[in-house]
Amino acid sequence: APMASRNIRLGVIAGDGIGPEVVAEGLKVLDVIAGQYDLTIEKTAYDLGAARWHRTGEVLPESVIEEIRGQEAILLGAIGDPTVPSGTLERGLLLRLRFELDHYVNLRPVKLLPGVKSPLADVTPEDIDMIVVREGTEGPYTGVGGVLRKGTPHEVATQESVNTAFGAERVIRYAFQIAATRPRRKLTLVHKDNVLTFAGDLWQRTLKKVAAEFPDVATDYVHVDAATMFFVNNPQRFDVVVTDNLFGDIITDIGAAIAGGIGLAASGNVNPDRSVPSMFEPVHGSAPDIAGQAKADPTATILSVAMLLDHLGLPEAARKIEKAVGEDLTERTGPRSTQQVGDDIAKRVAG
Amino acid sequence: APMASRNIRLGVIAGDGIGPEVVAEGLKVLDVIAGQYDLTIEKTAYDLGAARWHRTGEVLPESVIEEIRGQEAILLGAIGDPTVPSGTLERGLLLRLRFELDHYVNLRPVKLLPGVKSPLADVTPEDIDMIVVREGTEGPYTGVGGVLRKGTPHEVATQESVNTAFGAERVIRYAFQIAATRPRRKLTLVHKDNVLTFAGDLWQRTLKKVAAEFPDVATDYVHVDAATMFFVNNPQRFDVVVTDNLFGDIITDIGAAIAGGIGLAASGNVNPDRSVPSMFEPVHGSAPDIAGQAKADPTATILSVAMLLDHLGLPEAARKIEKAVGEDLTERTGPRSTQQVGDDIAKRVAG
Ligand SMILES: CC(C)[C@H](C(=O)O)[C@@H](O)C(=O)O
Ligand SMILES: CC(C)[C@H](C(=O)O)[C@@H](O)C(=O)O
Repeated sequence: APMASRNIRLGVIAGDGIGPEVVAEGLKVLDVIAGQYDLTIEKTAYDLGAARWHRTGEVLPESVIEEIRGQEAILLGAIGDPTVPSGTLERGLLLRLRFELDHYVNLRPVKLLPGVKSPLADVTPEDIDMIVVREGTEGPYTGVGGVLRKGTPHEVATQESVNTAFGAERVIRYAFQIAATRPRRKLTLVHKDNVLTFAGDLWQRTLKKVAAEFPDVATDYVHVDAATMFFVNNPQRFDVVVTDNLFGDIITDIGAAIAGGIGLAASGNVNPDRSVPSMFEPVHGSAPDIAGQAKADPTATILSVAMLLDHLGLPEAARKIEKAVGEDLTERTGPRSTQQVGDDIAKRVAG
Repeated sequence: APMASRNIRLGVIAGDGIGPEVVAEGLKVLDVIAGQYDLTIEKTAYDLGAARWHRTGEVLPESVIEEIRGQEAILLGAIGDPTVPSGTLERGLLLRLRFELDHYVNLRPVKLLPGVKSPLADVTPEDIDMIVVREGTEGPYTGVGGVLRKGTPHEVATQESVNTAFGAERVIRYAFQIAATRPRRKLTLVHKDNVLTFAGDLWQRTLKKVAAEFPDVATDYVHVDAATMFFVNNPQRFDVVVTDNLFGDIITDIGAAIAGGIGLAASGNVNPDRSVPSMFEPVHGSAPDIAGQAKADPTATILSVAMLLDHLGLPEAARKIEKAVGEDLTERTGPRSTQQVGDDIAKRVAG
């Protein structure tokens, strides 16, 4: 008897700038996988981003959030547009989704793939192979803060980093779980505990507490400023990194840079308990300067699709995409359009 | 008639770890300069740091701050020791001095000197030549924040970034003044205004306001995460950078990395109105792992002495030190002890 086909409800938020272009290629590859693994991908496209805001003034209506909650996973392109006041879409849409869906694990592999040139001299793929586990729901990203006497010489603007034992513990435990499955079994906390003493102390104590559950994982601490330096001159130092929301934002962009560029950096906004959809997206932004020119590299989105499949319990399919991307990177020649890269990878996946 | 000798009251805080070793070499070079420019350096050494804390429990007594206020400039080595709870010396001594003496300009050149190998492939000294102007007295460094229900599963720890129009405007104006003197005349604001909307908006409005006074300086804005990436794959993009206290801390460590390492990165904590002493220090920390082994590179401290001389209105002497350092870096062969590097540079300055 034929196996029952698996149905996957996928929310698709293509978003702004190059978002739609790269998402199209991600879906192209996902469709090939669907055929091979007998998956039915039930896609719902959400019209969110700059265009909707201009048209209706809406960023993320409650009803849409409720609908999105019913999806099994989300594929997101990019959010942000220069014609919309900075922060409106980022805070109102992207961060709102991360917070509402409690995506407390922001998973960002930093891996130099074979065939990719790092801007660092003298590094090989063995030298850059880490996973950054960025906290996704607190820290300086809460939006807590305000402004007093705006526009006067006496203006005061505050931003508050809010950190909880609950929030730190769950993401640190998740990071330990990942570290325990990797050959090096090393977890590095990145923070700034010599300056941000209240938050840093909480993270340090929580690390120590959770470490007791993972006696096989070695732990380490590096200040965020030193960490950025080590990313450049000693990336070998890192295996799994756990860090706060803002520090994670910053170090994963350097991570993308040393691993060959933002065009290759994938990520997952994960809620491990699966009661709500996790959301997968390239680390890059909407890049309005190259939007509509078929110049964007869809590889980061395609690798984000692989992370999505992993999350849905389809590791074989995920590895297949990664293998195809690896071959594509090694064998590519000359510049290609966004669509060509997608076609080439899809063809390799089709085998 | 012989010119009257100029007297300079210099506070010296050698501090922890490698601090005393590198400061000794900085003073060695300064003494040579003093002989050449008829300066009398009236040094007062302050016993501050881990040793004093262990001995007396004191970090920075009021009376010492008062005495330090009477100096014309301060040379600082490094602060921080693993035997002292993290933050005690950093906040209580180093940041306390920056705040008490209102060092609102933290000046950090990022320059690839000839003869120095960058970890980046394919860059030349022309590619990396910028100055980061880091705000030094507010932002997330204020220490505002606290902890609730410490040690319980319901712990909450907060850190507040406090930003004022007064604080942003003065440092932005200083950055414009520097940019106006440089050939490229370009000032880039680095912030994260799409997430830290209250503070980011204040910095953006302030930039725009002050820009009106400097019509010849081009301005630009880059998110901090993207900035770290550009430091690695497009450092040419930057001329003068102005940024907040925490972002400045982070990006200047990447800056040090791309410019050949923390052993070469100098800085000045500057209060431009000269009513209080400014403080010059290498960007590196106390490096307790190599302390006492004569392994530390004193070059960053020696370049900080050059910045100190510039600040005191002795640019010719400053250029002389920089020239000697440049020659030393180009012509050095094989590993040298801390003292040997200091001797070699001092000899070149002596000419
Ligand atoms: C667009 C922005 C809000 C976002 C962030 O800061 O998290 C982005 O930089 C990222 O890293 O996903
Ligand atoms: C030691 C520490 C408090 C300090 C800072 O964060 O400012 C250091 O990293 C620096 O950059 O001078």
